[in-house]
Amino acid sequence: MRQDELVCALRSFVDDREWTQFHSLENLAKSIAIEAGELLECFQWSDSAKRERVVEELADVLTYCILLADRLGVEADTIVLEKLEITKTKYPVELAKGKSDRYDEL
Amino acid sequence: MRQDELVCALRSFVDDREWTQFHSLENLAKSIAIEAGELLECFQWSDSAKRERVVEELADVLTYCILLADRLGVEADTIVLEKLEITKTKYPVELAKGKSDRYDEL
Amino acid sequence: MRQDELVCALRSFVDDREWTQFHSLENLAKSIAIEAGELLECFQWSDSAKRERVVEELADVLTYCILLADRLGVEADTIVLEKLEITKTKYPVELAKGKSDRYDEL
Amino acid sequence: MRQDELVCALRSFVDDREWTQFHSLENLAKSIAIEAGELLECFQWSDSAKRERVVEELADVLTYCILLADRLGVEADTIVLEKLEITKTKYPVELAKGKSDRYDEL
Repeated sequence: MRQDELVCALRSFVDDREWTQFHSLENLAKSIAIEAGELLECFQWSDSAKRERVVEELADVLTYCILLADRLGVEADTIVLEKLEITKTKYPVELAKGKSDRYDEL
Repeated sequence: MRQDELVCALRSFVDDREWTQFHSLENLAKSIAIEAGELLECFQWSDSAKRERVVEELADVLTYCILLADRLGVEADTIVLEKLEITKTKYPVELAKGKSDRYDEL
Repeated sequence: MRQDELVCALRSFVDDREWTQFHSLENLAKSIAIEAGELLECFQWSDSAKRERVVEELADVLTYCILLADRLGVEADTIVLEKLEITKTKYPVELAKGKSDRYDEL
Repeated sequence: MRQDELVCALRSFVDDREWTQFHSLENLAKSIAIEAGELLECFQWSDSAKRERVVEELADVLTYCILLADRLGVEADTIVLEKLEITKTKYPVELAKGKSDRYDEL
């Protein structure tokens, strides 16, 4: 499946329901935070969780992320790769290897 | 760019830094929530935001989502489409059209 | 220190800076979520964290909670106690003892 | 109602259910983020929300905040006031008046 087919499927879903009016950048950002909370709830009291539920909650976060990317006129894959290049320079292998510190504390 | 190339690029980045040890399902879920908060911060006091910053924060959320999907052994695109089918049945067009209500309040 | 003195101190701080215009219910709710993400960041890669930083981030969450309560015209202490009574009936001791399950799964 | 009475009521509730075992600092931080997401959900598609639901969700966030403060051995009121003094110096009235900018952009 290609990225643009996925975006088209989501766009049709939203258009069919006339939901574009609700999908401002801000509302989509809120929705991502809300769904991220539901994903985190899978791990509220334990580091293990029902795999099926995690997959479903992750899908919800991803759905709003792709909708927000589309609203911004960017492709999800592209911005992830572009950010990766920035992150690589902030976390050089020789400094960051095996450490979970933030770049400004390395 | 194909989905698996993106996943490979992220995997190499993580492996090179020996960060797999930190990327438990739970830690990735926490990371998604943390980055979702930073994305929301773009809209803290206003419904408008600097586009460039929104794109960058969204890329961070997406990065952890793709890493979590990979850890779960699923593909991001696939689980979004599978969840879309479920959501379609929860929000039938004739009931949900033009409304932002939750499915159990339609 | 009494609850109303705390609320007064926060109100003066906000009024002096003419920030009431930014403190809509929605913006305060967003702010709570944003600060909750920063608190969570203390535990991103580990279950231990610098105590001092946790205290400071928790204070930020609490500050916006008290401001939101004040905007809603309620007292933080009162609504916590009222909710506690509801929660008690949802989690009866004999069912909930030693379990972290949600009330609808007990 | 005094702060310590509230803390005692929450402690009894938790102790009666033998839930202290689940209330690590990290789990309480996660719980605050989860409940903050539910609070935000009240405003997902609109800046208005059902007041009663907002109050209830806010109470949930506050409850976990007070439990976390208690676990850290600090009082909620005290840390809010201490943080307020720090914030005052970061946002001097003459610079911050009427502006929603972050302190490092004032």
